[in-house]
Amino acid sequence: MSQEYPNPELLNSIINEKHAQLIPILKEVDIDCWMIFVRETASTPDPAMELVVGGDVVGQSAFVFSLKDGVLTKTAIVAYFDENATRGKGLWDEVIGCKKGLAEPLQNLMKKLKPKKIALNYSKTDVTADGLSYGMWLILQDILADYTDKFCSSTKIINALRGRKTVTEVELITKACELTEVINQSMAKKFQVGMSEFEVQEKFFEEMDAHGVGAAWQKQGCPSVDAGPDKELGHDFPRKDLVIQKGHTLHNDFGVRLKGYCSDIQRMWYFGKYDEIPDELHHAFDTVKEAILRASKVIKPGIQAYKVDKAARDYVIERGYEEYMHSLGHQVGKQAHDGGVNLGARWEIYKGKTDLPVEENNVFTLELEVRTKHYGQVSLEEMIVVTKDGCRFLIPPQDKWITIE
Amino acid sequence: MSQEYPNPELLNSIINEKHAQLIPILKEVDIDCWMIFVRETASTPDPAMELVVGGDVVGQSAFVFSLKDGVLTKTAIVAYFDENATRGKGLWDEVIGCKKGLAEPLQNLMKKLKPKKIALNYSKTDVTADGLSYGMWLILQDILADYTDKFCSSTKIINALRGRKTVTEVELITKACELTEVINQSMAKKFQVGMSEFEVQEKFFEEMDAHGVGAAWQKQGCPSVDAGPDKELGHDFPRKDLVIQKGHTLHNDFGVRLKGYCSDIQRMWYFGKYDEIPDELHHAFDTVKEAILRASKVIKPGIQAYKVDKAARDYVIERGYEEYMHSLGHQVGKQAHDGGVNLGARWEIYKGKTDLPVEENNVFTLELEVRTKHYGQVSLEEMIVVTKDGCRFLIPPQDKWITIE
Repeated sequence: MSQEYPNPELLNSIINEKHAQLIPILKEVDIDCWMIFVRETASTPDPAMELVVGGDVVGQSAFVFSLKDGVLTKTAIVAYFDENATRGKGLWDEVIGCKKGLAEPLQNLMKKLKPKKIALNYSKTDVTADGLSYGMWLILQDILADYTDKFCSSTKIINALRGRKTVTEVELITKACELTEVINQSMAKKFQVGMSEFEVQEKFFEEMDAHGVGAAWQKQGCPSVDAGPDKELGHDFPRKDLVIQKGHTLHNDFGVRLKGYCSDIQRMWYFGKYDEIPDELHHAFDTVKEAILRASKVIKPGIQAYKVDKAARDYVIERGYEEYMHSLGHQVGKQAHDGGVNLGARWEIYKGKTDLPVEENNVFTLELEVRTKHYGQVSLEEMIVVTKDGCRFLIPPQDKWITIE
Repeated sequence: MSQEYPNPELLNSIINEKHAQLIPILKEVDIDCWMIFVRETASTPDPAMELVVGGDVVGQSAFVFSLKDGVLTKTAIVAYFDENATRGKGLWDEVIGCKKGLAEPLQNLMKKLKPKKIALNYSKTDVTADGLSYGMWLILQDILADYTDKFCSSTKIINALRGRKTVTEVELITKACELTEVINQSMAKKFQVGMSEFEVQEKFFEEMDAHGVGAAWQKQGCPSVDAGPDKELGHDFPRKDLVIQKGHTLHNDFGVRLKGYCSDIQRMWYFGKYDEIPDELHHAFDTVKEAILRASKVIKPGIQAYKVDKAARDYVIERGYEEYMHSLGHQVGKQAHDGGVNLGARWEIYKGKTDLPVEENNVFTLELEVRTKHYGQVSLEEMIVVTKDGCRFLIPPQDKWITIE
């Protein structure tokens, strides 16, 4: 039985936890009304739906959270054929089902709420806060023509809400990490010299099916599998013509989705005896491991994200390697790339994400690679949760080369 | 092994078929350039991606189709970490990987192409043509500031491209329908009086797992299961407290996703002997069956969609029932609700979709229900493909009550 997604009871219980978080968050960002405005979410999902609504809707729908005098009011306006399913979840103070479109009930709701601002899901910087389509934006301009001056971006709300993992969420992400480790460890018996990257990936798929979990990102590249010195790590798919050889490394980037939560872990193997591993590979491995460790010692609530990246990046350069061409870490949760604060360098492409402060209960990857002269790239990825005064690894980091003889 | 999605070879081969369709379509709609503009599509997918790109991208990406002098040029501009995977698909004349964002390469491409129009994926009427987020629209205003007067909606392109199924697509949708029928038929041995709707759904899930197929829409409601006279059909989920009883009907609305294509079928069972079925149920069943048949005899290329709905709707009213509160049919393909032309009444909520002409190779559902006085609703849903001069049912329609004693 598939365990990729949570059962309805667990899903609703987590959503209720997220709703409770909304009260302090809306106060903090000084926004009194947040609206999710969607239709046919099987085709065009808004990532905020999984966070605070759960499931799909077919017709045009507005999910409105309003905070007044410290009281959160939650209203769902949906088409009549989505009404029963929405009501059945028990998440809403009021569910309004409409047969003739939502324009009138939505206008009436706004007249009642008199919001100072209406936060909508659009964002130039954060994809997880950018679920409003341009077509739906145009529709909203018509329906709420009298309120367009109140529209603002919900980026800050969603970043906080998605980033601050509840206890349940951290537990579920940890379970996904643990299962990832179980599957990775079971592979030691299944890998052998002569197998292609593609065959290795098939073995992972078998294990994932056996555990009833899904891939944390598109399956064709989850796990990625990279054999030998010539494969460029990154987002290339496993190849049928690249084969494991003795004296070569094997790398994967792998995450599962278990009960709706993702893991994202990189591991490395060496084909040969431990005492045959070249010094160059040891030097590279120790550098990556130590860089991640240093970053983990620096991160804590309040630190600007780029400083965490810098701790790892500086060390890599100090050890004589080229710096990695990506950020040290991203958040992980319902999505493998969970948006919000990013542990990146202050480059243009990460603008708006690296100067923000890290928060308690954020879950991050710490990941980087270095390039050796003769043996290709060495890359690891670990996962941490930010604690009150530092961080904690969700599963033990890879400590040394895993050898397969 | 999961068969929910096609293997990469099949996926790419279908995408190539869709690319070939683009040449006459772009001519027809008089648009010389179509651009899909996306990022992190695992979080915010654009439904056009599955049609003409395949797979996900992480970084900001532009997929540009340009038609000049009858020649289609296909360019992908992606982040450097998406470059290998994009190139590996072999779908693009040029793949441009960028390390510093796509603004400059995209501006350069537009200087080269000099498009008269640039169609973008936004639509007030059609969700499958509305994949551009508002945040990405804002970004595009900056990057292509000199071209904003050329922006137009790609609705007509996507409606034609998604709607005109290729031979391969019709074959795959037919296989999904056939498997749906196989699973439905296998249920006759598994249903029994005393089972709850929820337990019935579990039986379906087991069969779906055994066949390695996914649900065509959100699993919690796929299949829907409706037992007895008091359950309102529609999008309500199966309940644990509603139990099959002798002399009652059972209804489901069920579709699988097989190799990326969906089915969407409704069937009805009666618990008891055939000769015990009340006349009222026979009358209702025959009405629904005949209404669907009448619509199937009217539909052909060129007919305005609402006229097909009218053929069924008029008959239902003529037989003394209330008219159904939805459209007679929607398209089916990669999505269970596949956008475009809709076989609906000319109501406000279907505006822009019901006056359009039906086209050859469109795949539609024909579905409706009537309400009996004593036994609840009777509802059926069949699937057809529009042929040169009429239509063909993809699998045989339900002909009479299926009885379970």
